[in-house]
Amino acid sequence: MENKKSIALDMDGVLANNMAHYIAYYFEETGQHIAPSTLVGLPENACLPDETAVRRYLEHPGFFRTLPVSTNAQEVVRALHERYDLFVVSAAMEFPFSLRDKYDWLAEYFPFISWRNIVFCGDKSIIHTDYLLDDHVKNLKTFAGVPLLFDAFHNAQETEFERLKDWNAVATYFLA
Amino acid sequence: MENKKSIALDMDGVLANNMAHYIAYYFEETGQHIAPSTLVGLPENACLPDETAVRRYLEHPGFFRTLPVSTNAQEVVRALHERYDLFVVSAAMEFPFSLRDKYDWLAEYFPFISWRNIVFCGDKSIIHTDYLLDDHVKNLKTFAGVPLLFDAFHNAQETEFERLKDWNAVATYFLA
Repeated sequence: MENKKSIALDMDGVLANNMAHYIAYYFEETGQHIAPSTLVGLPENACLPDETAVRRYLEHPGFFRTLPVSTNAQEVVRALHERYDLFVVSAAMEFPFSLRDKYDWLAEYFPFISWRNIVFCGDKSIIHTDYLLDDHVKNLKTFAGVPLLFDAFHNAQETEFERLKDWNAVATYFLA
Repeated sequence: MENKKSIALDMDGVLANNMAHYIAYYFEETGQHIAPSTLVGLPENACLPDETAVRRYLEHPGFFRTLPVSTNAQEVVRALHERYDLFVVSAAMEFPFSLRDKYDWLAEYFPFISWRNIVFCGDKSIIHTDYLLDDHVKNLKTFAGVPLLFDAFHNAQETEFERLKDWNAVATYFLA
């Protein structure tokens, strides 16, 4: 137990597929379908034709409770859980109404992760684990361990950090 | 800014006076007043004559929202805020219904602490700051920085860590 390496896993854009949810909400609101490929390279908060939409969706009650889980995340996280000390670390504090939704979402999709291993914070600079898997460079920049960039449309141009393009790549990195 | 030392402050029993709230709830429930001095040295979860009471109160909706703030905590934390990077770090995840209550409580009593500096977690072992002020030895034992024990009835017999007996002692330690 003591020798296990620790990994901090981000929620939004990593465990959860926020992009798919933005597109689904936009379709619900406007009837207009946005192709994921057209979002590549756009900033997350202004990725939709209505640049106020993402922020509005994030503040919509239930948004975080109904996020789709990322493809293969459950299987890979379950496998990682056997070999590493996993922590879910989410910058949830910006959206206080999301706190309980995020807790319940984790309980639904990742029930094997104990409450002891969940962290809701603002600034992630005080989190100290061996690895951090995150889609936002701002969180990786202040991290003292090994930073890993989880591929997302909004970070397509980033070259500073090692990029893992999906959960299969995460499995290969940590379990191969 | 960059050279400020960082301090993690626990909530329950440190920023908030949990003991007073246990006694108030017990009086409300039974009509029996418990003198604080009679609790010294007792374990927190079994400090009242009804040993199931504390756990029941912790699970009572609103318990965390209505906690009294510790004597002098507001003035001292405000002064610390000028000279240190402060983080509030609470093991809130054990009580998921408390998450929003704790957030709102902090907004009421410590409005100058940004959401960026609030951390709700389970195990505090991944928190990395220069100092941790906490009333529970289990949190101090795994801490890599300078551990400081905030005096509480349940930790009266502990001798392993430097003890600060109240918020005036905290002010003296960090600001003198």
